[in-house]
Amino acid sequence: MTDSFKILKQHVTFEGTLYFCSHFSACCRCPMNFSVYVPQQASIAKHLPVLYFLSGLTCTEENFMAKAGAQHYAAELGLILVAPDTSPRNTGISGEDAAWDFGAGAGFYIDATQDPWNQHFQMYSYVVEELPTLIAAQFPADTTRQSIFGHSMGGHGALVCGLRNGDRYRSISAFAPIAAPSQSEWGQKALTGYLGSDPAPWSLYDATAIASSLVTAAQPILIDQGLCDPYLAQLLPERFVKVCQAKHLQITYREHPHYDHSYYFIATFIEDHIRFHARHLNP
Amino acid sequence: MTDSFKILKQHVTFEGTLYFCSHFSACCRCPMNFSVYVPQQASIAKHLPVLYFLSGLTCTEENFMAKAGAQHYAAELGLILVAPDTSPRNTGISGEDAAWDFGAGAGFYIDATQDPWNQHFQMYSYVVEELPTLIAAQFPADTTRQSIFGHSMGGHGALVCGLRNGDRYRSISAFAPIAAPSQSEWGQKALTGYLGSDPAPWSLYDATAIASSLVTAAQPILIDQGLCDPYLAQLLPERFVKVCQAKHLQITYREHPHYDHSYYFIATFIEDHIRFHARHLNP
Repeated sequence: MTDSFKILKQHVTFEGTLYFCSHFSACCRCPMNFSVYVPQQASIAKHLPVLYFLSGLTCTEENFMAKAGAQHYAAELGLILVAPDTSPRNTGISGEDAAWDFGAGAGFYIDATQDPWNQHFQMYSYVVEELPTLIAAQFPADTTRQSIFGHSMGGHGALVCGLRNGDRYRSISAFAPIAAPSQSEWGQKALTGYLGSDPAPWSLYDATAIASSLVTAAQPILIDQGLCDPYLAQLLPERFVKVCQAKHLQITYREHPHYDHSYYFIATFIEDHIRFHARHLNP
Repeated sequence: MTDSFKILKQHVTFEGTLYFCSHFSACCRCPMNFSVYVPQQASIAKHLPVLYFLSGLTCTEENFMAKAGAQHYAAELGLILVAPDTSPRNTGISGEDAAWDFGAGAGFYIDATQDPWNQHFQMYSYVVEELPTLIAAQFPADTTRQSIFGHSMGGHGALVCGLRNGDRYRSISAFAPIAAPSQSEWGQKALTGYLGSDPAPWSLYDATAIASSLVTAAQPILIDQGLCDPYLAQLLPERFVKVCQAKHLQITYREHPHYDHSYYFIATFIEDHIRFHARHLNP
């Protein structure tokens, strides 16, 4: 479906170019949007490492690029940034826009199995497989050097996609991730809606469950969490960290007094995250 | 009217605090919103210099703080940032929301003389006099050290407020300012609407006219302009620069090929602007 690829608009920023794109997704069976920042180094290097950012509930492909301040550091360090939309949209599924925490804007990076969501909501396969293939076809991306990070629902997505694919992503980080969704209200609603009420398959999309069943070493992980985050009860990062520490995974977990769940929190620590990934992508 | 001052929400970011505030404005005779970033240095220094940012058409007090990436550098350099809303809103004036380039979101930093706009649209006095008094009362601000900058309509506002008040602002900068509004469509519409069709008083709010009639040296001025800006015909920065150069004003004018009018342009050069102002505010 590469021939459906379209650049909708572009902006030069920090000497590189930010593209807002759409294409027809084969796995979601609908048009999908994403944004890509290609730094200036692309004019010299043929292939640059790629850092994927997965956004949180209600976000589109724009929030991260507009608010996080990430391009500054991607430009300095020569990384391509990719931020997909958080779900299929305008699919015609009844009730798609009824809730802010399920359906449109809330794909939870899950391959849905429940009708009607399974017709379009295949965000796990989209992020892990289809989108990187498209990025490699359209941009100067080195698909052997990928890392992934995200915020809130997207932090959950980054941990899940990253931990399940040690061969695809070199490092994983998250801001305030939904780290044990089987154990929180937001998570249970999404897991039930997309996967059904039998919790057996939920563990495929629960970072804490994935970490506890890991048999090999995982990639390096960095997590930042604000302690004035009003959603702490939905996030439960400490449960994930406890499992990682028990399994001797390479995890850095930082708690920040006074910080909340907003992009003002993300912007404060984005430099640390991008430098963390760059160390693993440009060794 | 200090007792109407309210903090609506706040976010810790870059170790300082960003406040979204409202108050009842005496000169606009309605509630007005603004945002203030107070860096961590305020916990030690009693009074910090203040840098005002005036936003462009359609913006509120939020756009700059969310998108420009300015807090990073204000935190490093110990500056308070203040960003007012771009106009009174919900005043009850008929047609206030009818146009994107006049009325709500488009106050043009003018003290209107034309009925009904003169009842509320007194943005020049608001920015230059009322808001700094309120900031000094509510925040650890050193009102003897102020500078001003802005974008597009707000770049116009910064040049006008700055050049007319050499005693109040130490330095002036602008991203893609509407620099000769008497000579462009956007400017003529606003000047006619707020001041009437007789162009005599327009020169009070036209940076190029103000510069050409200056009898004393002005503050240092920095202007950045993208050459892929689709609004160049509305902005006319080169006319302002030509007058400044003829008057031997201390102006740095930089043109940037490939850059457009967006916040992605502002974010790229925000560090330069804040360092420029800091040199004059923290000499």
